[in-house]
Amino acid sequence: MSASTREMLARVRQMVPPLLEKFHKGQLGRVAVIGGSEDYTGAPYFSAMASARLGCDMSHVICTPSAATVIKSYSPNLMVHPLMRSSPSSTSAPVTSSSGADTDAQQIAARIVPMLDRLHVLVIGPGLGRDPLMQDTCALVIRAARDRGMPMVLDADALLLVQREPDLVRGYRLAVLTPNVVEFGRLTRALGVDEQVRAAAQQSETAKVEALAKALGGVMIVQKGPKDQISDGKVTFTVDLEGGRKRSGGQGDTLTGSIATFLGWRKAYLDGIWETGKQLKEEELVGLAAFGGSAITRECSRLAFAKKGRSLQASDLTDEVHTAFLNLFGEVGEDGSGARL
Amino acid sequence: MSASTREMLARVRQMVPPLLEKFHKGQLGRVAVIGGSEDYTGAPYFSAMASARLGCDMSHVICTPSAATVIKSYSPNLMVHPLMRSSPSSTSAPVTSSSGADTDAQQIAARIVPMLDRLHVLVIGPGLGRDPLMQDTCALVIRAARDRGMPMVLDADALLLVQREPDLVRGYRLAVLTPNVVEFGRLTRALGVDEQVRAAAQQSETAKVEALAKALGGVMIVQKGPKDQISDGKVTFTVDLEGGRKRSGGQGDTLTGSIATFLGWRKAYLDGIWETGKQLKEEELVGLAAFGGSAITRECSRLAFAKKGRSLQASDLTDEVHTAFLNLFGEVGEDGSGARL
Repeated sequence: MSASTREMLARVRQMVPPLLEKFHKGQLGRVAVIGGSEDYTGAPYFSAMASARLGCDMSHVICTPSAATVIKSYSPNLMVHPLMRSSPSSTSAPVTSSSGADTDAQQIAARIVPMLDRLHVLVIGPGLGRDPLMQDTCALVIRAARDRGMPMVLDADALLLVQREPDLVRGYRLAVLTPNVVEFGRLTRALGVDEQVRAAAQQSETAKVEALAKALGGVMIVQKGPKDQISDGKVTFTVDLEGGRKRSGGQGDTLTGSIATFLGWRKAYLDGIWETGKQLKEEELVGLAAFGGSAITRECSRLAFAKKGRSLQASDLTDEVHTAFLNLFGEVGEDGSGARL
Repeated sequence: MSASTREMLARVRQMVPPLLEKFHKGQLGRVAVIGGSEDYTGAPYFSAMASARLGCDMSHVICTPSAATVIKSYSPNLMVHPLMRSSPSSTSAPVTSSSGADTDAQQIAARIVPMLDRLHVLVIGPGLGRDPLMQDTCALVIRAARDRGMPMVLDADALLLVQREPDLVRGYRLAVLTPNVVEFGRLTRALGVDEQVRAAAQQSETAKVEALAKALGGVMIVQKGPKDQISDGKVTFTVDLEGGRKRSGGQGDTLTGSIATFLGWRKAYLDGIWETGKQLKEEELVGLAAFGGSAITRECSRLAFAKKGRSLQASDLTDEVHTAFLNLFGEVGEDGSGARL
């Protein structure tokens, strides 16, 4: 581990809440993942489960009814709400209502938006798919969440929304985008900064991510790769922890869920629900949350790869979330039990 | 462990049946959990599975058809009956019958009530939700169960029923209510005793729970908190066993299922199916069942927290039910095998 990574982890550690007797349910984070469609049910599960096993108090998934049945069956610990709808032209059941309740994005979003007041952080995109009705509904929910000043992590097909309508998130400093290399390229082209990004890449390893973050007005970008590069255009971090060498799908979902829990802890830190020492500035917390999520995911990948080698699957990362947390952030509790928390 | 807790556990221990060769299926308890709706499937599973793992013979869940499919998938050990119906106005499938069979609470309850004669204890509320048809159906089942003198545990959204219609349970000494702090507050306001409860709270730690139990005419209240307070208005117990310090959702479901099994054992004790010694009075058995369930749940929470720390999920408690039982009540069996039972 490099000295700079060690130093960053120590800063991230300051926003990890202790587990105090006085806390009540929900104070350590309420996260919802919006995604899960006819084709994809693993991604939202991995994301929500990572948030839960990292230590937020409540993890929800908001998805289509058919995805809900499957995701619920993966774990009784998640709360799964079948509130999303895909376009009726898809191969699923016929429309049973002519009122638009199941076909109009406004009406669908109107059933999701009231939940936001009971949540702290959204992850949008895992297993979302490209169905227009799903995409339109997410755009409405993103606007409502932004109006409420809610932090959000956008990944996978939610990045399509940003490609098409960058103003959805432009200048919103509580948005974290986690593009892979293909999505990163699409975003730079959509924003018309691909030439600029290519030129920047000649100068330094981090110039690309900085250029994209600037083009989006200070949104936090986590560029996944051999090292993760994290930037809001002003401040840039590199996460150089060792990961696994298996490139199976779904590992990015552990990243989004982990960042979400750190963003939940950001709120707990700002609310001062424990003696934080107030060493961290509010404006650095989103970057620390992204760094923390990236570090956890890379450590999960390393641990899982050491056990599973080329057979590694995304769920093997889920199983390592708590051990990864203990390895990077764990301290012996002060209750005398010797438990590491 | 305090001396008073140790003494209480020894009393509870007397109502735990031995495992005798002569017993047949069902004698050590037949429990049904009524709950499980479009949004919630984990809660009824945790409750029913706690009852099963603690040691009742048969654990049922009565829920909606869509919840039934999911709950069945969690475990082949539970018997899951898709007999509940939610209002057709909800976003699910269209009404397929115009006869009222699926929309009339009386007709729905009429398919559930005949099961009561084959059951010993009901848990009502886990994952029930607030749908009016579900709520109305439960009210009818509660009346039928009370007519039969059946013990019942009410939690979560079943407490809404008590708020709206306190006479459903008022004066029924075989009802156990397990409100959390929010539900406790709502109940005292609904009963018009919130001022009185606030005043009582100045006097002692247990005065609140006593005031609510009295307002409900001697119903057993388990007030969950840093310590659990249990009272029927006359006799009050405090359960001060150490629990875990993670506040994730679903831990209260282990409590309701555990109390249900002890209430099943209460019947076995009263029926004298083994040489009980008859040291316990009938009127103290419901309090002892509540104490036993609370003690088991806190020990599950402590054990799971020691292993899982901040990654603790509700299902981690389920995994500890038998170890918690052995720690608190286990004895080496007299069959010479050395097995702890």
